[in-house]
Amino acid sequence: MEVSSYQTPSKTIVNCVAYLNGRRKADVPLSQVHELLKENNQFVWIGLHEPSEEVLEQVQREFGLHDLAVEDAHNAHQRPKVEMYEDSIFVVLRTAQINKEHHIEFGETHFFVGANYIVTVRHGASVSYADVRSRCESAPQMLSKGQGFALYAVMDFIVDQYYPVVHQMELELESIEDKIFREKPSRETTEQIYQLKRELLEVKRAVSPLVDVCNRLMRFDIKTISEDIRPYFRDVYDHVVRINEMVENTRELLNTALEANFSLISISQNDVSKKFAGWAAIFAVPTMVAGFYGMNFKFIPETEWPYGFYAVLLATIGLCILIYYLFKRSGWL
Amino acid sequence: MEVSSYQTPSKTIVNCVAYLNGRRKADVPLSQVHELLKENNQFVWIGLHEPSEEVLEQVQREFGLHDLAVEDAHNAHQRPKVEMYEDSIFVVLRTAQINKEHHIEFGETHFFVGANYIVTVRHGASVSYADVRSRCESAPQMLSKGQGFALYAVMDFIVDQYYPVVHQMELELESIEDKIFREKPSRETTEQIYQLKRELLEVKRAVSPLVDVCNRLMRFDIKTISEDIRPYFRDVYDHVVRINEMVENTRELLNTALEANFSLISISQNDVSKKFAGWAAIFAVPTMVAGFYGMNFKFIPETEWPYGFYAVLLATIGLCILIYYLFKRSGWL
Amino acid sequence: MEVSSYQTPSKTIVNCVAYLNGRRKADVPLSQVHELLKENNQFVWIGLHEPSEEVLEQVQREFGLHDLAVEDAHNAHQRPKVEMYEDSIFVVLRTAQINKEHHIEFGETHFFVGANYIVTVRHGASVSYADVRSRCESAPQMLSKGQGFALYAVMDFIVDQYYPVVHQMELELESIEDKIFREKPSRETTEQIYQLKRELLEVKRAVSPLVDVCNRLMRFDIKTISEDIRPYFRDVYDHVVRINEMVENTRELLNTALEANFSLISISQNDVSKKFAGWAAIFAVPTMVAGFYGMNFKFIPETEWPYGFYAVLLATIGLCILIYYLFKRSGWL
Amino acid sequence: MEVSSYQTPSKTIVNCVAYLNGRRKADVPLSQVHELLKENNQFVWIGLHEPSEEVLEQVQREFGLHDLAVEDAHNAHQRPKVEMYEDSIFVVLRTAQINKEHHIEFGETHFFVGANYIVTVRHGASVSYADVRSRCESAPQMLSKGQGFALYAVMDFIVDQYYPVVHQMELELESIEDKIFREKPSRETTEQIYQLKRELLEVKRAVSPLVDVCNRLMRFDIKTISEDIRPYFRDVYDHVVRINEMVENTRELLNTALEANFSLISISQNDVSKKFAGWAAIFAVPTMVAGFYGMNFKFIPETEWPYGFYAVLLATIGLCILIYYLFKRSGWL
Amino acid sequence: MEVSSYQTPSKTIVNCVAYLNGRRKADVPLSQVHELLKENNQFVWIGLHEPSEEVLEQVQREFGLHDLAVEDAHNAHQRPKVEMYEDSIFVVLRTAQINKEHHIEFGETHFFVGANYIVTVRHGASVSYADVRSRCESAPQMLSKGQGFALYAVMDFIVDQYYPVVHQMELELESIEDKIFREKPSRETTEQIYQLKRELLEVKRAVSPLVDVCNRLMRFDIKTISEDIRPYFRDVYDHVVRINEMVENTRELLNTALEANFSLISISQNDVSKKFAGWAAIFAVPTMVAGFYGMNFKFIPETEWPYGFYAVLLATIGLCILIYYLFKRSGWL
Repeated sequence: MEVSSYQTPSKTIVNCVAYLNGRRKADVPLSQVHELLKENNQFVWIGLHEPSEEVLEQVQREFGLHDLAVEDAHNAHQRPKVEMYEDSIFVVLRTAQINKEHHIEFGETHFFVGANYIVTVRHGASVSYADVRSRCESAPQMLSKGQGFALYAVMDFIVDQYYPVVHQMELELESIEDKIFREKPSRETTEQIYQLKRELLEVKRAVSPLVDVCNRLMRFDIKTISEDIRPYFRDVYDHVVRINEMVENTRELLNTALEANFSLISISQNDVSKKFAGWAAIFAVPTMVAGFYGMNFKFIPETEWPYGFYAVLLATIGLCILIYYLFKRSGWL
Repeated sequence: MEVSSYQTPSKTIVNCVAYLNGRRKADVPLSQVHELLKENNQFVWIGLHEPSEEVLEQVQREFGLHDLAVEDAHNAHQRPKVEMYEDSIFVVLRTAQINKEHHIEFGETHFFVGANYIVTVRHGASVSYADVRSRCESAPQMLSKGQGFALYAVMDFIVDQYYPVVHQMELELESIEDKIFREKPSRETTEQIYQLKRELLEVKRAVSPLVDVCNRLMRFDIKTISEDIRPYFRDVYDHVVRINEMVENTRELLNTALEANFSLISISQNDVSKKFAGWAAIFAVPTMVAGFYGMNFKFIPETEWPYGFYAVLLATIGLCILIYYLFKRSGWL
Repeated sequence: MEVSSYQTPSKTIVNCVAYLNGRRKADVPLSQVHELLKENNQFVWIGLHEPSEEVLEQVQREFGLHDLAVEDAHNAHQRPKVEMYEDSIFVVLRTAQINKEHHIEFGETHFFVGANYIVTVRHGASVSYADVRSRCESAPQMLSKGQGFALYAVMDFIVDQYYPVVHQMELELESIEDKIFREKPSRETTEQIYQLKRELLEVKRAVSPLVDVCNRLMRFDIKTISEDIRPYFRDVYDHVVRINEMVENTRELLNTALEANFSLISISQNDVSKKFAGWAAIFAVPTMVAGFYGMNFKFIPETEWPYGFYAVLLATIGLCILIYYLFKRSGWL
Repeated sequence: MEVSSYQTPSKTIVNCVAYLNGRRKADVPLSQVHELLKENNQFVWIGLHEPSEEVLEQVQREFGLHDLAVEDAHNAHQRPKVEMYEDSIFVVLRTAQINKEHHIEFGETHFFVGANYIVTVRHGASVSYADVRSRCESAPQMLSKGQGFALYAVMDFIVDQYYPVVHQMELELESIEDKIFREKPSRETTEQIYQLKRELLEVKRAVSPLVDVCNRLMRFDIKTISEDIRPYFRDVYDHVVRINEMVENTRELLNTALEANFSLISISQNDVSKKFAGWAAIFAVPTMVAGFYGMNFKFIPETEWPYGFYAVLLATIGLCILIYYLFKRSGWL
Repeated sequence: MEVSSYQTPSKTIVNCVAYLNGRRKADVPLSQVHELLKENNQFVWIGLHEPSEEVLEQVQREFGLHDLAVEDAHNAHQRPKVEMYEDSIFVVLRTAQINKEHHIEFGETHFFVGANYIVTVRHGASVSYADVRSRCESAPQMLSKGQGFALYAVMDFIVDQYYPVVHQMELELESIEDKIFREKPSRETTEQIYQLKRELLEVKRAVSPLVDVCNRLMRFDIKTISEDIRPYFRDVYDHVVRINEMVENTRELLNTALEANFSLISISQNDVSKKFAGWAAIFAVPTMVAGFYGMNFKFIPETEWPYGFYAVLLATIGLCILIYYLFKRSGWL
């Protein structure tokens, strides 16, 4: 599980659709959006994917966006935030997903939301929002609440994508726990803990600013979002807080795991020392016995016996077995 | 002590009773609730247990609940919170109890409280609230304060259920302390510390948002709860803060226990090393003596003596005993 | 120094005295308090010690106290707090003192303070407030400020009792420091650190909520306390903050002591290893020499000498002394 | 990578230019600034580099600056801050850059911003702001917004200089990770971690107060900065928060790295002990065998064989190889 | 560097001077102060040093100070604070200085500031404020701003005294770093770290409440301090924040140093183990060789050779040197 960088772009303008009373009216070319917006009760939902500078400039002209927001949307290395301008808001979210190699891939999605338009700008690894759009279209009574609901729908989708990411990290923590408490301490486990910590911090950095973003969207009086959408942002807020808690929990457990791992390394060290001491004692016995019978005294008992050698050998082996048994019982071996 | 998942459901609508001036009036079918509520001075208390989608929809129609709240009540994986809607509030609490195998089981209870109704929705492991209800019914002067008192009674009951849970964790900490300071360091103790930490975090996650929930219930001006109920929520608040403190305390002690455990592992390691060094020294003596008498010199003293071997043997053993005694006195053995 | 539980009660109503313009007027039976309070410029100070339910009910009727506060005063396992009711306040403090066995004993004192009365309810280990009362009576110009001053006097007394408690813990920390830096690392020191941490957390739990309690008493506009008493609560506040700081400081030093202790255990481990290695090297020399002279070569030098054995023995001992000296100088022994 | 001190000054007044409607009007001597400022729609941008006391006094007289601010500007050991005076603001920033020896060099830049002037005072290691000035001059429509835009431009430039600094520290962390997880534990790695921590704290101290500085500039109603400049300070704010997060992240990873390093040292210690124990066991075998055949029994088997010595030698070597193989398989060697 | 207690007093009333329009008017006896203060545009600056109870009572009568403040000024074991009374403020600061034995000595200075007077009360180790007074007198235009400026001048002086104290602690940290990274781990270094931590906490306790004190003095509308003095308290505030940051930084580095120290102890332990293992292996070789040639086989090769003993001896020594060389290259010795 590693964190990989942004991927290659495909086509720039994914979608540009006008909605009337929550129902899809027509696909429109970007250049005709301006005329459309003169009519009441409708809004335009434009989906861009890693747009070129030209496209962004066109969008900017069309909706009168602020230079700084457009610059941000082009650079795409922002932290999640919401910026209120006079007649529009600019929202930045980070997206996360797990790719086929079980790595976490991050992306970014930016939103421009005005009186009668919403523009989503996808950067880096992220699923297309076509599904979200069609789900919205299948509930016209909701979508009739305007571009605010579209913003909610995509945000909700993005935040929900964090559940599998966090879940995978929780699984990885469990696998680390297993290794710590069931297997021998190893360099690999320590490195795995470190790498998981790295990932956690990365995800935390993406998720924790969302608490503030949702808070502002649900509390502040924003003209471009109709009031009955706010409870929906409270819902997103709840999810974000829960994901944050899961990340925080995993982090605290990971820290404890690191310390527990360390304790177990020391216990294991203790075991090695004790085992070694035990065996050294067992080995010391025959060496000592042999030493004594090797002394050059004129008279040493048993040495005259025909089977003295064997007797001593057997006695020594017996003694060793006895010591082994005693050590085993007292936990030294 | 492990954390187990939600259990099997029983029947859905546990109870649906109308109260007039705090006194039980009649069991009513859910479908007739609407008519009843037209009369003054009475409210309906409905108890659901893991309701089907149909039942929830019926309740939603009956009381005009918000989609998102009902969705939450169905999904049942929320964090504790209170949500204020125009004419109702939605409260989510997590319940905890210790089952027969001494494991902590978590559940969830949701409340819809409106002008003249309260709906409790139980999910997962949780005791029935029949006892709470009958206790309330035996104090009609309190229950006459309306559905707010019923909300308080159930919340108080849920929060009180955390005391035995936290108490069991405190006992477990004491058993861990005993193991750390009285027994030898072991892998099991370290793992037990880790598992207790996991449980603590789980309980903390269930309890700590309650501080905010109680705060809102006791401070905000909520139409559906009569004002003289507020001191009661302050009472619940006090309990929640106390449980939080107990959890926090246990957590801090547990962290210190982990470090103390670690220190004692090292001291134990030290003891092993010293013991080993001491015995190695004792063993080294006879090996050295034997080596010297094993040298092939033409003339070695004592070797000619008839009992030289025994003399040397005894002298060596005596020397070993002396060293043993000296080491014992200086704390190396 | 251990934390012991609550002790046996003595008599319930310790005192019930009416004061007029700050001067003791008369001892009154509890049942006549109501009549007395109709007169102006006087207040009643009632001292209870672990009162029975009946006495508390009588007090409740007499002064019209809230059910929940009276229930709290009876149960006596509250955390320190102040609760404002319409025409009275309810204050809970934890008391601490050191008993003859140098253990910390905790108790609880509750206060009901109304327009013209103050009731103190003592639970568990605590000194009688008779001294405080007589000191107040000897300063009638202060006591004429009403029951607010009596509240201050007892609170000040309770908070001052924490100084010797905290001081004893600071002394204990110093004794631990001495053991860490002057003596050998031991299991006892580690356990002592742990137990002191436990006590610290207990005291902290009793003291830290007092900051908030004093803050409310000195800031909020409370009818039952005359305004010129507020600077006195600021004085109590200062003491509480100082005790809190002392506890916090001791805790931080204790954590550092735990780590320093750990470092010294490791250094001590290092010393053992080095000593062992050094002596092993010294012992290895004679073993090796003896081994060589024990080889069964036809011709080995010196073996023919009459005093060869002694020569080799002395040379070996000399060599050992030399190595010992070299190791001593380089810090290995 | 070390932190070096301030460098030698060059010339004091780097630049003193008047701007009319955002366009460069003329270089003016400092003494004539006063007259110029009587005209509308223009402002003066003065760049100083480590000015002498005389120059600062002249500037103070010219613009009526507060004594304390001028004293600060002269001393140049301030922490980043913004101070609002009646008709001017005083801003202090710390600058950082990486010199040729890959060390971080810190400097300070102070700003006096009034109704129609901006004075920048550079201290210590810092790039000249000539580039910023010419970039501003090439966008007169922006610069026409007044001295507030000049302030933004230089602040943005200073904050952007922190990216390479933080990036270098991130690279260093990665090199430390490599050393920890790929190489043997060493004193150098530990010291490198410590030094990086030192640098991180230094950078954090320079950056973290900027959050507050930007916050005040973008929120407070400051007369001397035109209102449409505020979104630009929000942009700087975003960058500062991001740099802060990067520093914080690196710090948390570094702490984990220190602990991981420690774990690996212990594992490595474990490996040494196990290897030693294994080899000791292998060596013990021939010593024991030799000892037994060295005993002075009258009859020892094999000793009479012509190639007994070789047989025993080979058998012993074979046994050692077998043990080696067994230990290798079980992970002791 | 140790923290010593308060020193012996000298004379009580150090100074009592009346100022008119910022210029020294006359030394006045304390008893005549009252009359003097009836005239306009002047104030009295009284300097006391560990005053007796009588002197304090006289001052209290003269200026109508609050009982509690005077009691505090007499007891002199307060934490830094500012207390606002109706027509005066009471400020407590802790002073610190380094004595000749390089120990930190703490003292306390209290201020009573009213409409036309300032009283400074020095306790414990502290420099006389005669210098501050004469410096103030040499700037009558500043001192004409009233007693508020005198308060600022002394506070600024006291805060500036913390710079050398903190600087000495930073130097001590550097000396500790040197010992950790350049010398062998030792008990002394660990104890030095602990003692520095103790001192840091002591200084932090003296400095950190000053942030709040300065904040109140620069923000609150205090009658007895003229408004144009407030920027000066902001200046003191900046210094206090900086000293706080330095203390905080040193503390964090010290914690890291403690951990780094610990890592290096373990690495050092590792080195000892490896060295020991290496030498044990080298010693094992001759022991084994000697053992084999000591076996009692009828025929052992080389034993018949005239110089066999020497040959084997040399071969063994050669082998040892070879092993030594190999170990040296692979880092075991």
